[in-house]
Amino acid sequence: MDRRKIAYGLLVLLVGLILWFIPPPAGMDLNGWRLLAIFIAVILGLILRPLPQGAIVIIGVGVSALTGILKIGDALSGFSNSTVWLIFTAYMFARAFLKTRLGERIAYYFIRALGRRTLSLGYSISLTDLVLAPAMPSNTARAGGVIYPIVRSICHAYDSEPGPTAKKVGKFLIFNEYHTTLVTGAMFLTGMAANPLVAQLASQTIKATVTWTNWLIGALLPGIITFLIIPPLIYFITKPEIKVSEEAPKLAREKLKELGPATRQEKTLAVIFLIVLALWILGDTIKLDATITALVGLSLMLIFGVLGWEDVLGEKGGWDALIWFGGLVSLATGLNKLGVINWIAEASKGIVSGWEWLAAFVVLAIIYYYVHYLMASMTAHVAAFFPAFAAVMVGVGAPPLLVALVLGYLTNLMAATTHYGTGPAPIYFGSGYLDIKEWWGYGFLLSVLYLLLWFGIGLPYWKLLGLW
Amino acid sequence: MDRRKIAYGLLVLLVGLILWFIPPPAGMDLNGWRLLAIFIAVILGLILRPLPQGAIVIIGVGVSALTGILKIGDALSGFSNSTVWLIFTAYMFARAFLKTRLGERIAYYFIRALGRRTLSLGYSISLTDLVLAPAMPSNTARAGGVIYPIVRSICHAYDSEPGPTAKKVGKFLIFNEYHTTLVTGAMFLTGMAANPLVAQLASQTIKATVTWTNWLIGALLPGIITFLIIPPLIYFITKPEIKVSEEAPKLAREKLKELGPATRQEKTLAVIFLIVLALWILGDTIKLDATITALVGLSLMLIFGVLGWEDVLGEKGGWDALIWFGGLVSLATGLNKLGVINWIAEASKGIVSGWEWLAAFVVLAIIYYYVHYLMASMTAHVAAFFPAFAAVMVGVGAPPLLVALVLGYLTNLMAATTHYGTGPAPIYFGSGYLDIKEWWGYGFLLSVLYLLLWFGIGLPYWKLLGLW
Repeated sequence: MDRRKIAYGLLVLLVGLILWFIPPPAGMDLNGWRLLAIFIAVILGLILRPLPQGAIVIIGVGVSALTGILKIGDALSGFSNSTVWLIFTAYMFARAFLKTRLGERIAYYFIRALGRRTLSLGYSISLTDLVLAPAMPSNTARAGGVIYPIVRSICHAYDSEPGPTAKKVGKFLIFNEYHTTLVTGAMFLTGMAANPLVAQLASQTIKATVTWTNWLIGALLPGIITFLIIPPLIYFITKPEIKVSEEAPKLAREKLKELGPATRQEKTLAVIFLIVLALWILGDTIKLDATITALVGLSLMLIFGVLGWEDVLGEKGGWDALIWFGGLVSLATGLNKLGVINWIAEASKGIVSGWEWLAAFVVLAIIYYYVHYLMASMTAHVAAFFPAFAAVMVGVGAPPLLVALVLGYLTNLMAATTHYGTGPAPIYFGSGYLDIKEWWGYGFLLSVLYLLLWFGIGLPYWKLLGLW
Repeated sequence: MDRRKIAYGLLVLLVGLILWFIPPPAGMDLNGWRLLAIFIAVILGLILRPLPQGAIVIIGVGVSALTGILKIGDALSGFSNSTVWLIFTAYMFARAFLKTRLGERIAYYFIRALGRRTLSLGYSISLTDLVLAPAMPSNTARAGGVIYPIVRSICHAYDSEPGPTAKKVGKFLIFNEYHTTLVTGAMFLTGMAANPLVAQLASQTIKATVTWTNWLIGALLPGIITFLIIPPLIYFITKPEIKVSEEAPKLAREKLKELGPATRQEKTLAVIFLIVLALWILGDTIKLDATITALVGLSLMLIFGVLGWEDVLGEKGGWDALIWFGGLVSLATGLNKLGVINWIAEASKGIVSGWEWLAAFVVLAIIYYYVHYLMASMTAHVAAFFPAFAAVMVGVGAPPLLVALVLGYLTNLMAATTHYGTGPAPIYFGSGYLDIKEWWGYGFLLSVLYLLLWFGIGLPYWKLLGLW
């Protein structure tokens, strides 16, 4: 271990210890406070990386159990979380696309058609996501399961791998699709798993009736604008080295010739994938959980030999995500159980007491948005924070439907911030094209931009719609 | 996939389907019956292996969720089971012993002292287990965490690896230690995690007072005899090719010279291991769960660089065990939840109604023993079956303390049967020295022998002790 890493490790330890020994703020449970201390130390550890992130999370989980703050069952509970297994399975799909070279083939089709300009390639991927979004409420299944293998294969086809060649096109395409899926998720009530939960809680707590249509209408203007500017913006941020390439489409054509006709394995994978895609799209209608579909897909791949068990055991990315994301889910769930989340909601109320409703609404919404740094799931975030924040906002005079919709939209966009905030994050971050500084740094900038856009364009637009 | 495997796969599918469509026996819940159909098909799959066992279990878990028999949360619940993570961690310890070569060093010490005869080497390992057993209630920590890395290293030192060289010494040493740990677990109230649960349930349900001492006294004679005959018996069964070796101790001496003084990594691992060992031994006293200790140990190994994160991600055996054992725990837990276990207990009662107590007692005990084919944990077995079986036995006239002790002893020995019946099983089986036919075949023979010994010697002995 080099000196810098030891120093970072000691710093993380020190921060954790100091927080641990500071008395908790009034009204917060001592155990909750201490778990927050562990959580913050873990997050700091994820940022500074004195050790790989899996190791950091294992240590955090271990400490939370050793100190008795979480029971061992709770400390391990994240490892049976269904989103965690959906993520895990997404890695297995990606591996299958790579192994059978079906991903490469699809990538070459994309490149042949649109690869002259890297930006148009980015747009075409975003568009694929947009088309799927209304029908696929699991953003992990959509961006992680369906699109990730293709994006990853396109990068591969451009010889843009994590590391020195990441800048060629990979960094741009990976980050662009991750942010796109947040926006497309925000646009449709059925675009992300926690959106219907927002609608349900809104009707239960603040008597606002959210429908598929009023959700979409409210999101339309800011949504389309955000959707359109993301690719050029991230293009600008990540500066892909390959901008225009007359060669790429030609090369793709040649490569497709080289690949020849599809192999039996490719065809089998394609059929399995179409089945899984259909089940994911129909999932909401036939009440089939996305993770079950994913497990069925994995089973089929194993049965028909598209993927061997050795491939599964060797897919280190999947295991890595399982450990670190699963562990974070345990810790974040614990924060909720021990009342920390509730305490934050209560404290946020206090801040705005006596304010004008619009100011209070915006400030509370911003707090709601940025506490996502503490959460490992949008659904958990909604379940934990939505009722309290919505109630206070309506309490100070904000119109219920506006509250419901805006919190709903922000629920998606808030995952701009971290690499663990929603299912696709561990997958796209795990690809290795962006380091943690880039992910968090650019992510924060984009999160601010999202707030500016959705409030700046949104508020006048929603006024026009008569929402306030 | 070859033809035989396809045929086996279809057979497994057929058995599952037939059971699925047979109406459930009277009194059994339809969903419970169908889960049993899936479970039996999975077990058959594990035996015939049309696919690797991890794949079989994933498919079983997937089917149970797809058919709606288990909710997705329940279908994944095994993956947050603490024993599963203790097993996982045991693999990481084994990896660390291998990587630092500390395991090799210890192995050479053993061989230098006792390696002239393979049988005496086997005895010395059994003795190590016996010495630890009274103080280590987690047999996974004892046999999996502490002894496995050493046994594995000894095999390695003899060039006896899974595959063609397995017969040299590996098959013997591995299988011998696995069966030894069942017997040592049976001998002490503190020898296995479910034993105290037996004592507690015995006092709650049949008013029998089990103490550390009366447990030991009852186990002493059959226990010592079983303990002594296991090594030569398994020696006879597995026929190690190296029986006597004048060379081995000499070679060990040379190898130790070659290894030179312990490296810093070895020393670090030794210290961490002693800490973990102390915490495991003290665990019961200071109320520290064995899995927490294991996580702390893993954390320390990662922090001090004894193990890199890449080593963890690359330890396929651990991931394999996590998947297949975790999935089986989910299914077995489901069987319990859906009342299948209860149904079996009730049905067993029916069989012995009106019998002489001694006959009823022995027959029920044998049923209790062999239903362990359906269970993935001794603790779950005790929780599910002990109260019902104990109550009926006492109901037909068996003395409560005899009932409590005998069911307690059998609770340990019953894991002779499968490779998933208790924590160390996935670890020792996972080493690959025995194939499934050997594990189950020899295991069944030994399970019969255990019953013969413990009832044959035990009943007269317990009569002498005044237990009946």
